[in-house]
Amino acid sequence: MYFGAQISLYPMTDNFVGVIMSALGALDPYREQLRIETDDLSTLLVGPPEAVIPAMRDMFVAAAKTGVHCTLSATISRGCPGEPHDSRCDSPQLDGPLAPLAERQAHALQAVLQAPDLACEIAAQFSLYVMGTDDHMDEIYGCIDFLKQSGVLDRPKNFCTRLGGDAGAVLAALEAAICSFGPPQGHVTIDLTASANSPTPR
Amino acid sequence: MYFGAQISLYPMTDNFVGVIMSALGALDPYREQLRIETDDLSTLLVGPPEAVIPAMRDMFVAAAKTGVHCTLSATISRGCPGEPHDSRCDSPQLDGPLAPLAERQAHALQAVLQAPDLACEIAAQFSLYVMGTDDHMDEIYGCIDFLKQSGVLDRPKNFCTRLGGDAGAVLAALEAAICSFGPPQGHVTIDLTASANSPTPR
Repeated sequence: MYFGAQISLYPMTDNFVGVIMSALGALDPYREQLRIETDDLSTLLVGPPEAVIPAMRDMFVAAAKTGVHCTLSATISRGCPGEPHDSRCDSPQLDGPLAPLAERQAHALQAVLQAPDLACEIAAQFSLYVMGTDDHMDEIYGCIDFLKQSGVLDRPKNFCTRLGGDAGAVLAALEAAICSFGPPQGHVTIDLTASANSPTPR
Repeated sequence: MYFGAQISLYPMTDNFVGVIMSALGALDPYREQLRIETDDLSTLLVGPPEAVIPAMRDMFVAAAKTGVHCTLSATISRGCPGEPHDSRCDSPQLDGPLAPLAERQAHALQAVLQAPDLACEIAAQFSLYVMGTDDHMDEIYGCIDFLKQSGVLDRPKNFCTRLGGDAGAVLAALEAAICSFGPPQGHVTIDLTASANSPTPR
């Protein structure tokens, strides 16, 4: 299994370099669990979902708490056939056979309920892509049904689903979305945009 | 067929609202061909690929030419089974049966060769997702082979492919990527990040 993300943080301020450099400190507690590589376009995080997703969450929350309008763009991927196996990515969330949909939805809801409250309101939109199967829309609709119960669903948009709420709950929902829908060994990705402190009315 | 994109422009400056509002003017020549809707997270463009992709290109180039570091994030989608048919999106690029791969690659290369020179150097990375088939990686590798000939391939990265060059050629390559790989009536998406004027060394 290979799990990871390419993430980019965009602070809309003249001091964007300072905000980014400071927010990168939030990755420090995760450095032992993750492979981290940065270039001018994005930062790669490779490891288990239970480290990759909280790491990107904490980095984004650190930037959002400066009060500056900032966004996070992420390409999250698991099981890409073009990537090698990496035992660093092994996770109980991606183990075993495909459980019945209702069981996976209940597990996903539990994860959102147990998410920490980070006192950081965000908006987000994401697309979930399940490759290599001819029933990919069933899995996507199954994920949307879970989100309807989760408390973080805002509304559907063309090509994506909009979420809103505390960063703890929203990122827990996204971690559940990519781990619980599509086969555990399948190729599943998320295209994510998250935003904090936007001055634009919704 | 349904074709469109959710696009977001991020200028890294205190004056981000001014840069965005000014760049939106670049969409004006395309307004008759496109459905355009904006909220605080993104702008939706719906129409044929030959209008959607140049519209997002021109908006990004307008922002980049201010000299400010700015990025464009886009979720580009065609044939999503969850979207209605919209004749506004009809395109000769998405018509007819699936041609042999070599023919599609040659057509894609022609499109890049004929792209306008916009005197705007950009970097980009993207992921191409082909849903609903069990040979999605063949189409993705077919696209990468086309890019190797295109002059805009920079290097592979985990989960995505990095491009670089003039915005005219790079966006032409992306339009060819989403139109020419995967079945013409299939569900195909691109997750795109583009960047201009970054102060960060590569």
